[in-house]
Amino acid sequence: MDSMLDERRDGSGGDTLVPPVNFSMVEEGVYRSGFPRASNFAFIETLNLRSIIYLCPEPYPEENMKYLQSRNIQLFQFGIEGKTEPSVSISENTITDALKVLIDVRNHPVLIHCKRGKHRTGCLVGCFRKLQNWCLSSVFEEYRSFAGVKTRVTDLRFLESFDVAALRHNLYSIIYQYQGYGAKKRRLLYKEETLQKPPRITSN
Amino acid sequence: MDSMLDERRDGSGGDTLVPPVNFSMVEEGVYRSGFPRASNFAFIETLNLRSIIYLCPEPYPEENMKYLQSRNIQLFQFGIEGKTEPSVSISENTITDALKVLIDVRNHPVLIHCKRGKHRTGCLVGCFRKLQNWCLSSVFEEYRSFAGVKTRVTDLRFLESFDVAALRHNLYSIIYQYQGYGAKKRRLLYKEETLQKPPRITSN
Repeated sequence: MDSMLDERRDGSGGDTLVPPVNFSMVEEGVYRSGFPRASNFAFIETLNLRSIIYLCPEPYPEENMKYLQSRNIQLFQFGIEGKTEPSVSISENTITDALKVLIDVRNHPVLIHCKRGKHRTGCLVGCFRKLQNWCLSSVFEEYRSFAGVKTRVTDLRFLESFDVAALRHNLYSIIYQYQGYGAKKRRLLYKEETLQKPPRITSN
Repeated sequence: MDSMLDERRDGSGGDTLVPPVNFSMVEEGVYRSGFPRASNFAFIETLNLRSIIYLCPEPYPEENMKYLQSRNIQLFQFGIEGKTEPSVSISENTITDALKVLIDVRNHPVLIHCKRGKHRTGCLVGCFRKLQNWCLSSVFEEYRSFAGVKTRVTDLRFLESFDVAALRHNLYSIIYQYQGYGAKKRRLLYKEETLQKPPRITSN
């Protein structure tokens, strides 16, 4: 089905769709959720995904992999352990690598997911919000609305300390700038397309 | 500012943006939140809104009204009381009227808001999800992720009983069908544009 409001001639609206647990739209072309099951494939079909960012170290299930291959959806895996010790935080490098994939519109529409769509996904989306200049309290509010009572202080600390200024400098060397907003089509452009390269940053 | 990732030449990323409380993207061109304050206007600017669906009976504050007028944003007000008696549910007719505005892409991008973005907004978005064929448990999950401990059983009952089949029939007479999905640009079409009118429904 390729209509958002699927109005059949009989008015029934067609089959019921089951989004993955904790599903939500993050931005145009960016979605988040818990682990998609076979029962969610009909819903996922409506998203026309080009890629998936999968944040667990476990191999992708065969059933899901087959579905991705049949739809030509690319899988980007970044193995982040689910249960971390309270003293251990998520790796900044891994999140930075995932962010680079996430903000590249050539990979959109993209679905980010881990197991429950709370902690690992919440951390990646939170860092993305910081890149979008969201204030920290709003980043936390969004994280909490998905993690609920499972909110982890280590994740909040990670989100607070994650350095987007340094990341922005790094990104200059490869990409990206969104053009337009809202009604207008947004896309990332290679810097070279429209902008002069900024001076190379050798230190901060 | 009209870039999603606002990368200034100095790498600072520009000013911090403050989304309204309980802000989220619902669909392409559809947003939801609590009541926007002046401190949120810079963020709202980035959404390029064409309209706002306001679900409270109280008059719109002058400051907000001025902002809307300066940006040529249309206000659609549907006065739904905030604190309802446990025995009183939201009016189906009011929600249906709001839905008709909501799904008309000529009003997009649109922001739905009430006071806290929990109950009235949650009911409207929930009915929209039913129109999109979401299963009821996913509709409830989304409602709860915003309402949290303030979840109201009356709202859940309203969402369960809201009749989208009847609404679909009604919509035939005026509108609309989304074309395409995800990467492709979605829009609603007047039925007359591409489809034959279905037989007039005189009873169900």
